[in-house]
Amino acid sequence: MNPPDFGGPAGDNATDQVDRLIALLAKLPGMGRRSARRAALKLLRDPGGLMLPLADAMRSTAEAVRPCRICGNLDTTDPCRICTSPSRDQDVLCVVEGVADLWALERARVHRGLYHVLGGVLSAISGVGPEDLRIEALLARVGAGEIGEVILALPATVDGATTAHYLHDRLRSSGVVVTRLAQGVPMGGALDVMDDGTLAAALKARRPA
Amino acid sequence: MNPPDFGGPAGDNATDQVDRLIALLAKLPGMGRRSARRAALKLLRDPGGLMLPLADAMRSTAEAVRPCRICGNLDTTDPCRICTSPSRDQDVLCVVEGVADLWALERARVHRGLYHVLGGVLSAISGVGPEDLRIEALLARVGAGEIGEVILALPATVDGATTAHYLHDRLRSSGVVVTRLAQGVPMGGALDVMDDGTLAAALKARRPA
Repeated sequence: MNPPDFGGPAGDNATDQVDRLIALLAKLPGMGRRSARRAALKLLRDPGGLMLPLADAMRSTAEAVRPCRICGNLDTTDPCRICTSPSRDQDVLCVVEGVADLWALERARVHRGLYHVLGGVLSAISGVGPEDLRIEALLARVGAGEIGEVILALPATVDGATTAHYLHDRLRSSGVVVTRLAQGVPMGGALDVMDDGTLAAALKARRPA
Repeated sequence: MNPPDFGGPAGDNATDQVDRLIALLAKLPGMGRRSARRAALKLLRDPGGLMLPLADAMRSTAEAVRPCRICGNLDTTDPCRICTSPSRDQDVLCVVEGVADLWALERARVHRGLYHVLGGVLSAISGVGPEDLRIEALLARVGAGEIGEVILALPATVDGATTAHYLHDRLRSSGVVVTRLAQGVPMGGALDVMDDGTLAAALKARRPA
């Protein structure tokens, strides 16, 4: 423990608590030591306004939210509300890398079927193999026979494409229809700032006007 | 409340809790909606690792830390450990804008006297007048007669300089020595990237080599 590094008064036990708060805040993504100090000061200036509500929200959420045993989504119920919803299409399964992608698709309200969270993508560099992802669980769900289409909504990166290829191979024998998200110019995207790969993909996948 | 804005699954009561967590995280300085979502996901992936310790640290800090009635520092005791420390010089008072500045000086271990936190600087644009700052409390401390020197460690900005001038005027009748931090080229600073004001101040305050 090195208090001066985290910005509390140096060498004074009195502020170990503040130092610890700053150290923990600094572990949040996007936070550095400096912004953690600023955040701690803002919290300390009005504890009732943000610090206590946030503490309570974190504690209650930590106790209430867990991964869905079926799809891997995070929810206060297990199985999650998407998996148990009677209004979702039971025969279309959308495979995503992580819960953040699931949330993004739900925000866009474009997918009315079910999800399967892989928990990552294959990566030779990071040493992520098939056994590290929820692939067997996916094959088991598809093997149960109620799924008609698997949509691979994986990131448009090399690792995402590798993972999509791998899953396509593994799903081939199941007879299920496997599709991917279209690639092209994003909404509002100006052509002159697009990378070559996007332009090539958009041109190749061109459609009648 | 607009859940899609904060990134939870849209229109689903199940995740109101996560939405609320994200909304609160987004209020931290330096956090936007997007980074609050990422932070929430990181917290949710391993609640025991960071979320519960952080919740506990915030709750216990909120309950334990309060402003020192003498200097305005934040500490678990009131008066704070600096004000009550017998090893600090009781006759040198360093005036700072905020607690963050006090912490910075303590980290540097350069000031062995006491502090006085103003809680801001005078600002015509932001409508901050003398009555909004802890100036009367400063004059009362100096008036008690034990202080020999007041160091104005205020920011090197227009508002900081205005505040320093104002405090110097108000302290004149007390007979106390009033000093300011030196201005000049910072340690490691290359001359060709310094602004004109810094170069002018450094040249004006030049000293024998």
